[in-house]
Amino acid sequence: MTDDIAARLAGQKITLPTPAAPVAAYVPTVQVGNMLYLSGQLPFDADGKVMTGRLGEDKDVDYGYAAARACGVMILAQINAALGDLYKVERIVRLGVFVSSAAGFTDQAKVANGASELMEQVFGDAGRHARSAVGVPVLPLGAAVEVDAIVAIKQG
Amino acid sequence: MTDDIAARLAGQKITLPTPAAPVAAYVPTVQVGNMLYLSGQLPFDADGKVMTGRLGEDKDVDYGYAAARACGVMILAQINAALGDLYKVERIVRLGVFVSSAAGFTDQAKVANGASELMEQVFGDAGRHARSAVGVPVLPLGAAVEVDAIVAIKQG
Amino acid sequence: MTDDIAARLAGQKITLPTPAAPVAAYVPTVQVGNMLYLSGQLPFDADGKVMTGRLGEDKDVDYGYAAARACGVMILAQINAALGDLYKVERIVRLGVFVSSAAGFTDQAKVANGASELMEQVFGDAGRHARSAVGVPVLPLGAAVEVDAIVAIKQG
Repeated sequence: MTDDIAARLAGQKITLPTPAAPVAAYVPTVQVGNMLYLSGQLPFDADGKVMTGRLGEDKDVDYGYAAARACGVMILAQINAALGDLYKVERIVRLGVFVSSAAGFTDQAKVANGASELMEQVFGDAGRHARSAVGVPVLPLGAAVEVDAIVAIKQG
Repeated sequence: MTDDIAARLAGQKITLPTPAAPVAAYVPTVQVGNMLYLSGQLPFDADGKVMTGRLGEDKDVDYGYAAARACGVMILAQINAALGDLYKVERIVRLGVFVSSAAGFTDQAKVANGASELMEQVFGDAGRHARSAVGVPVLPLGAAVEVDAIVAIKQG
Repeated sequence: MTDDIAARLAGQKITLPTPAAPVAAYVPTVQVGNMLYLSGQLPFDADGKVMTGRLGEDKDVDYGYAAARACGVMILAQINAALGDLYKVERIVRLGVFVSSAAGFTDQAKVANGASELMEQVFGDAGRHARSAVGVPVLPLGAAVEVDAIVAIKQG
């Protein structure tokens, strides 16, 4: 099922970026048993700049979707760095999606799909996850979206 | 201890609703080993409409409490759908409660009790959980409250 | 590595406070297997008063850092109460940091470092954790910061 992850990445025209260094005193991933906990990832564009803004104010759903997908790509890069490759992923268990939102913006689910659909595109059924998506007033560095994750790793 | 869950549900006049379908590209629950991760659940009223609004603005604590309890009922429905029944619950481990809040509203704990007290009413000591409750400016579909959960499942 | 935890606490001039009682219908910690889940902790000052305010409005980064550290100290006190001592900590796995933020405040990472650096000061490498830090409009009791945690416990 996951044998074609490389093909899927190519099909999605995704090249894994250099994993972003934490912007502070923590680490990007912690493994406990067969569970991998990922720090909240910010969205970076092709030039390596943080994708900033607030949904419902200066940014629309399409931009938010792209930002959430960029967070998802960074999650892939962090998993790859932590485990050596993406084939060791047993299941994407949970995504926590925080969307910088004006008070009247209620389409957090559509924005968060940028990360969620990426996981299914890359991992198939193993990419189908539990999720919480909420609005927040502001994120670190002014980011439009932040996504954290819990991943189950194949045994042995 | 949990043999009387059905009686407790009846005593609370709770009929489990049809579990809400995810509003986007994810799944309501993921099981890994003996842990069940639940997606953030929104509150639905008796007519199946999302309970919307913002605490400290157009909604009061009583409404928020009812909304949090409605999220909790949906969590019960999702556990029931995932495990077949509620008797397989070993422990409600953690609830994450997000309360749509005006800047001056600081009673998120009282609102979140709507979900927390439900868990203790239904599961007794096994329903006593760790919890985070925070204010957010806005939630998907304009919901007043969103609650996610981690549940431990009985072995064997 | 962790044999000098007591010395490190002394070096940081930290005396563990009486663990704060939950402000509502939940418990401060739940252990499942070798994982300890901690409820969101609020910051208390030396007089036992909640450290309130909003970053970027009436409070600056230094205050926020101190508040996040105070949340971290309460996390230590809760771990100590749950496990009997801090030496049973295998790893601080994850911190979730919620920072009460005005819309223009984007230094949540600097604030959250108050909790993160404390964990490394006390536990060394075992204190290095995954983390999410986000802005929120308001927290329970008007707190400036709230921090929850997942901790791995030594086996046997």
